[in-house]
Amino acid sequence: MRFEIKYRDGMGRVCLLEINNKKIETPTIMPVVHPNPKKQSVPIDFIKKLADIVITNSYIIYKNKFLREIAEKLGVHKLLNFDKIVVTDSGSYQLSVYGKIDVEPNEIIEFQERIGVDVGTILDIPTPPDVDKEKAERDLEETLRRAKEAIKLREERGYRLLLNGTIQGSTYLDLRKKSAIEMSKLNFDIYPIGAVVPLMESYRFREVVEIIINSKMYLPNNKPIHLFGCGHPMFFSLAVLLGCDLFDSAAYSLYAKDGRYLTETGTLHLEEMKDLKEFPCSCPVCLEYKPNELYNLDEKERERLLAEHNLYVTFEEINKIKEAIKEGSLWEFVEKRVRAHPKLLEAYRILKNYMEYIEKFDPVTKKSAFFYTGIESLYRPEVLRHKKRLKRIKYNKVYITNISSKVERPYSEHINIVKTDVDILIKHPIFGLIPYYIDTIYPLSQHEAPELYDFEKNINDRFIEEFINWLRKKIGEENILDIRSYNYYTSLFSEDFDSNAYRIRKMLQYQYGYDILEGVNVRVIRSKNTGRLRKVLNENGDLLFSIRSHDNFLIPSKLGAKLLWEKIPFPKYRVVVNKEAEPFVKKGRNVFAKFIVDADEELRPYEEVIVVNENDELLAYGTNILNGVEMREFNNGLAVKVRGGIYE
Amino acid sequence: MRFEIKYRDGMGRVCLLEINNKKIETPTIMPVVHPNPKKQSVPIDFIKKLADIVITNSYIIYKNKFLREIAEKLGVHKLLNFDKIVVTDSGSYQLSVYGKIDVEPNEIIEFQERIGVDVGTILDIPTPPDVDKEKAERDLEETLRRAKEAIKLREERGYRLLLNGTIQGSTYLDLRKKSAIEMSKLNFDIYPIGAVVPLMESYRFREVVEIIINSKMYLPNNKPIHLFGCGHPMFFSLAVLLGCDLFDSAAYSLYAKDGRYLTETGTLHLEEMKDLKEFPCSCPVCLEYKPNELYNLDEKERERLLAEHNLYVTFEEINKIKEAIKEGSLWEFVEKRVRAHPKLLEAYRILKNYMEYIEKFDPVTKKSAFFYTGIESLYRPEVLRHKKRLKRIKYNKVYITNISSKVERPYSEHINIVKTDVDILIKHPIFGLIPYYIDTIYPLSQHEAPELYDFEKNINDRFIEEFINWLRKKIGEENILDIRSYNYYTSLFSEDFDSNAYRIRKMLQYQYGYDILEGVNVRVIRSKNTGRLRKVLNENGDLLFSIRSHDNFLIPSKLGAKLLWEKIPFPKYRVVVNKEAEPFVKKGRNVFAKFIVDADEELRPYEEVIVVNENDELLAYGTNILNGVEMREFNNGLAVKVRGGIYE
Ligand SMILES: [Mg+2]
Ligand SMILES: [Mg+2]
Ligand SMILES: [Zn+2]
Ligand SMILES: [Zn+2]
Repeated sequence: MRFEIKYRDGMGRVCLLEINNKKIETPTIMPVVHPNPKKQSVPIDFIKKLADIVITNSYIIYKNKFLREIAEKLGVHKLLNFDKIVVTDSGSYQLSVYGKIDVEPNEIIEFQERIGVDVGTILDIPTPPDVDKEKAERDLEETLRRAKEAIKLREERGYRLLLNGTIQGSTYLDLRKKSAIEMSKLNFDIYPIGAVVPLMESYRFREVVEIIINSKMYLPNNKPIHLFGCGHPMFFSLAVLLGCDLFDSAAYSLYAKDGRYLTETGTLHLEEMKDLKEFPCSCPVCLEYKPNELYNLDEKERERLLAEHNLYVTFEEINKIKEAIKEGSLWEFVEKRVRAHPKLLEAYRILKNYMEYIEKFDPVTKKSAFFYTGIESLYRPEVLRHKKRLKRIKYNKVYITNISSKVERPYSEHINIVKTDVDILIKHPIFGLIPYYIDTIYPLSQHEAPELYDFEKNINDRFIEEFINWLRKKIGEENILDIRSYNYYTSLFSEDFDSNAYRIRKMLQYQYGYDILEGVNVRVIRSKNTGRLRKVLNENGDLLFSIRSHDNFLIPSKLGAKLLWEKIPFPKYRVVVNKEAEPFVKKGRNVFAKFIVDADEELRPYEEVIVVNENDELLAYGTNILNGVEMREFNNGLAVKVRGGIYE
Repeated sequence: MRFEIKYRDGMGRVCLLEINNKKIETPTIMPVVHPNPKKQSVPIDFIKKLADIVITNSYIIYKNKFLREIAEKLGVHKLLNFDKIVVTDSGSYQLSVYGKIDVEPNEIIEFQERIGVDVGTILDIPTPPDVDKEKAERDLEETLRRAKEAIKLREERGYRLLLNGTIQGSTYLDLRKKSAIEMSKLNFDIYPIGAVVPLMESYRFREVVEIIINSKMYLPNNKPIHLFGCGHPMFFSLAVLLGCDLFDSAAYSLYAKDGRYLTETGTLHLEEMKDLKEFPCSCPVCLEYKPNELYNLDEKERERLLAEHNLYVTFEEINKIKEAIKEGSLWEFVEKRVRAHPKLLEAYRILKNYMEYIEKFDPVTKKSAFFYTGIESLYRPEVLRHKKRLKRIKYNKVYITNISSKVERPYSEHINIVKTDVDILIKHPIFGLIPYYIDTIYPLSQHEAPELYDFEKNINDRFIEEFINWLRKKIGEENILDIRSYNYYTSLFSEDFDSNAYRIRKMLQYQYGYDILEGVNVRVIRSKNTGRLRKVLNENGDLLFSIRSHDNFLIPSKLGAKLLWEKIPFPKYRVVVNKEAEPFVKKGRNVFAKFIVDADEELRPYEEVIVVNENDELLAYGTNILNGVEMREFNNGLAVKVRGGIYE
C-alpha cells in the first residue's frame, strides 16, 4: 500500500492511495454495493462511472451458497463485476443488528483473503452509543483481542489481504483513545472509526467530531482513516477537515428507497418536492425529469433514479472538498457547510477546544485569503498560530495602538510612521495584535472581513491584556511606551535608520523564532513597479532571501539557507535525512519521506526548512509538505520540496 | 400581464408571471443572447432547454441592417429563434460605454414595439457609482423625462409593448428613492434596478443591497423587480430575499470567454482547476470532461462548454432558491450563501438596519424550523417580530427567570410549574424573553441553535432591560415579582385554576393582540397520544379553535371566526372585499386580490384573518397570502386562502 499527501489544509488532505497496483485519490467515498446484483438499487456499471473503490459485505457472501461459490471460484471482483478496489465489511453490522452471527472472527478473515478482497475488516464489536461503560470496555477488549488474532493470522499465513482495524469505544472518549492507541500498535492498513451511525442519524454531530478527534490524535498519520457508515454529504467536509480520508455510503440507496433526495446540506423528501418546477440540481437525473414526473414513475425506477442522483451529489461534494483543499480554503468551505444545521455548527464550534492539536497540521501559508465568515473564524488555526508566533519576535520597546478599521491593509502601505525601532503593535479584532513591521505576512494582510458588530470587536480584549502582561515580564514596564514616551523616543531617533532592513529582521524573527539577521548587514531591494519589498542582499550584493509576493514569506537562497543553518540551533527548522539520500538531496533532488531520520517536531506544513544530514551538515533547503510529526511516520511520498541543494 | 405570488419567504417570492399568454415562474434569470447567432457562445437551442425568458439588445438589432430587416419582417422571436418571452434592452449599455448613441429615446421604443418585443426598455441613463451628485441628479431628471415620454408614446399609439422602467440614481440612496417614487407614478410593467454592475464587479455588495432596499421600499409590490446586470449566482439568494424577481446574465458567456468557471459561491479559473481529478459539479459538461481535458480543448469549444456549465449552475441556484422559499427556509439559505465572501456577509449584516421594513413581508409562520446559523440570526424578522408581539400580551403579574439551556423546548413539556396566572418570562439568548404560556408557538419552540459562546448569551441583555422598563410603566413595579413574592403569590393560588384555558387565552393575545377569550369560558382538549393541546371548545362543546400541530397557531372554526370578529375592532385582522365577491366568499371560495377593497395594513403573510364586507359583516375566515400593504396593490392572484365561509 502507498499513501502519500498531495495537497492539504486543516487536518484534511488529498492523498494518493495505491492498493494492489490500483491508484485512487482520497478523500473519496465507497458506495456500498450488495453482492447480489438483484438487491442493488443502482447497477454496478453506473457506480463504476463515479467510484474507484466500493465496499461490500463478506458475511453476506459467506452465508449465501450461490454467491460464495462464485466468489471462491472467480474472486470478489468478478462477483461484483468491479475491477477497482474492493473493500469488505466482516459481519460486524449484522452483529450489531442481530446480536450474534454465524462465523468465527478468524474464519471471516480467511474468507476475505480467499475471495481476493483488497481490504478486509476484522470482526469487531460495534458498541452503540450510551451503553454502560463496563459493556463498552468489555466490547473493546474483545475487539482488541480479535484484532491481534487477525494480524497474527495474516502474518503466519502470509496473507496479502490489507486489513481495516476499526476503532470502537462507544461514546466514551477515553475508550476511543485507548482503542486508537492499542490498534496503532498493530499493523493495520486502514483505520475505520466505527459505530458512529446512530449518532449521525440523531444529529449528534458534536459527539461524532469528538470521537473523530480523540481517535485521530492517537492514530498513525500515515494510514488512511475511514469514517465508517458516514454517507451523508453534509458531514463530509467537517470530517475531512479532521483528517478523515474515506467514507462509505449505503445512504445513497437507503435514502432512495425511502423517497429521500440528498443535498450537500441536508435531505429533502421527493413527496414534498413534487410541486417544484425543477429540481435544485444539475445532475443528469434532475435535468431529465421534473419533480412530479420522477415522483410518478414506478417505484423501482424512481428508487434507481433517486439513488443515482444521491450518488452524484455525494461525489460532487467530495470533488468540492478536494478543490477547497487544493485552494487552501477548506476552513472557509467547512464554515459555509456547517451553517446547514445548528447541530453541525455546534460540532464545528467544539473544534476550538482542540485547536492546539489541529493547528500542528494546518499549513502556515495558503493560496487563498483568510475569510472571516462569522465569530467562529476567530478560533481558527491561522489566528491561534499568529497569537503564538507573536512571541517569537524579539521586542525592545513596544507601543500599542489602535488604527481605524477603515485603513486598508497592509497598514505599512497606507499609513506613514516616523522612523523608529519601536515595535508598534496594532490592535486588531481578529488577530489580536498586528505588529506594524510584519503586517504584510500571511494572513495579516491576506484576510477579508465584514464590518464587525461592536461586541465582536472586543472579543480579543483578554488576549491583548494577557499579551501585555507577558510583555511586561519580558521587557519591563518602562519599555511599553505610552503616546508621550513614544513621541519623545522617536523624535530622538536617527534619520539614517534602515527601516526596510529592520522590517526584514522582524519578519524573519516571526517566521523562524530566531534573530537571523543579528549582526548581519543587509540591503533590501524594493520592486520598481509596486514599491514592495522584493529581495534581501548581503553586504556583497548576493541574494539571501526573496520575498514571495502572495504571502510575503522570506524564501531563502542557498546563502540564505546557510545563514538559517548558522543562526537556528539544531534541530529547529531541520529535516534530517539518512546517508543514502544525502548525495541526491545535495544536488537539489526532493526529499522523500522514507529517507527521513528526524525532523523538528514543531514544523508545520509549508514552512521554509533546511535539510541536513545526521551530523547537521547542510544539504539543501525547501518547503516541507509533511509536518514535524508526520515526517517521522510517513514512509511514502514527498516530504520536502527542495528548492536547491548545496552542491547545485 | 399577470403577476401573482405563489410562495414566499422574507421579501422573496415565487410568482407566476404571465406576459402575452406566456407563463413563467419567477425568480428566474434571463440569459443575455446576442441577436447575431455567430456572436453567441451557446446555441439558442441549448438556452431554450433552461430558460423561459431571454434578453437581447434592441439597439444592436436597430443598428445592424441585416438583423434589423429580419426583425422588422419576422419579429424578434423569429430572429432569435426563441418563442418564449423576449425582453430587450435599449442601448443604455452602449450609452454607458460610449457616452453617446445613435438613436432617439422614443425611436427605440417604437422600434421595440415594431419588432414584437414582449418587454422593452426605455433609453435610461445608467449613471455609474461615485459620480458627483449633480451629475447623478441631472442624469436622473433626463431618465425621468424619457420615462414619461415613453409611457405617453405607448398610450397615445396604443402599443402592446410592456415596458421596463429602470431605477437610477447612482450610489445616492436618496436619488434611488426619488427615482423609485417618480417611476412608480408611471405605469411601467417591470422595474429594473440599474447600474449596479460596477458595484457588483468590485464586490461592493453592501451598497448594492442598500440600493435594492431603498428602491424596493418605494416601488409597487405588485410589479416584478429586475436586478439589471446581476448574473453571478453568488448574489442571487440575497437579492431574492430582498424582493428581486428577475436577473439577467451575460456573465455565463463573458466569464466563459475569460476561462472562468462559475460556482454558486464564487468564480474559479479553469487554468487553476486543471490539476483536479474531477470537476466539482454534476452538470453534463462536468461529468463528460475531466478538468484537464476541457482545458485542452480548442478555444471555441472550451468557451461554449464553460458557458454551458455556467448556465447550469446559474439555473441550479435559482432552483435552490425557489425550493428554499417553498420550504420557508430562505433566510437559512441566504445565511449559508453569504458566508461565501466576507463582503457578502457584510451586505447581509446591513439588513439589520432595515429589518422593521423587511419584517412586514416575512410570513408569521414557516414550514421549517428557525435555524440559528451565527450571530447574524439574532436580527432576523422572526426575532424582531417576537420582541414586538411580546407587548401584545396583557400582563398582570410577571416573574422573570432563567432556565438552563439544557432544558428542551417547549419548556412547558419539560418543566413543571405550580398553577399560577403569573406571566412567567424566561430569558432566552435568541428571542430575549419567552413567556412560559406561549412557548409552543412558532418559532419559540420551532428553532434550533448550537451551544452558544458566552458573549453571545448576553447580546439580548439590553432588550430585556428595556422590556422590563416598559413593563414597569405598564403594570407597576409591584407587579414584577421577585422569587419571594412569586412563591408567596403562587402558594395562595387556587388549585382549580384552568391553566390550559389560561394558556390559550395568552396564545390568542400573542397571535392577535386582543384578549379574545375575555369573559369567554372554554374547555381545552388535549391529544390522547401526545398530551398536547389540540382543541378549544366553548361552553356548549362547540369547536372554537384547533391548535395546528407544527406551529401551535390557533386556527379558528366558523364560531372562532365570529368570536375574533366580535373581539377584534375594525379594521384589525380584517380583509375587506367588495360586493361582487361577497356571495362567493360567503360560500367559502378563496379571496382574490382584485376584489379587495381594504385590509389591515399591519397584516403579515400567513396570518389567520377574517374576511368582511364594507359594512364589516363577517363573510369568511382564512389564511392571507398577501400582507396588508400588498392587499391594496395587487390585482392578480390569491389574497386569502379561505378556510370557510359564513354560509358554508
Ligand atoms: Mg448540484
Ligand atoms: Mg452542482
Ligand atoms: Zn440531481
Ligand atoms: Zn458543471
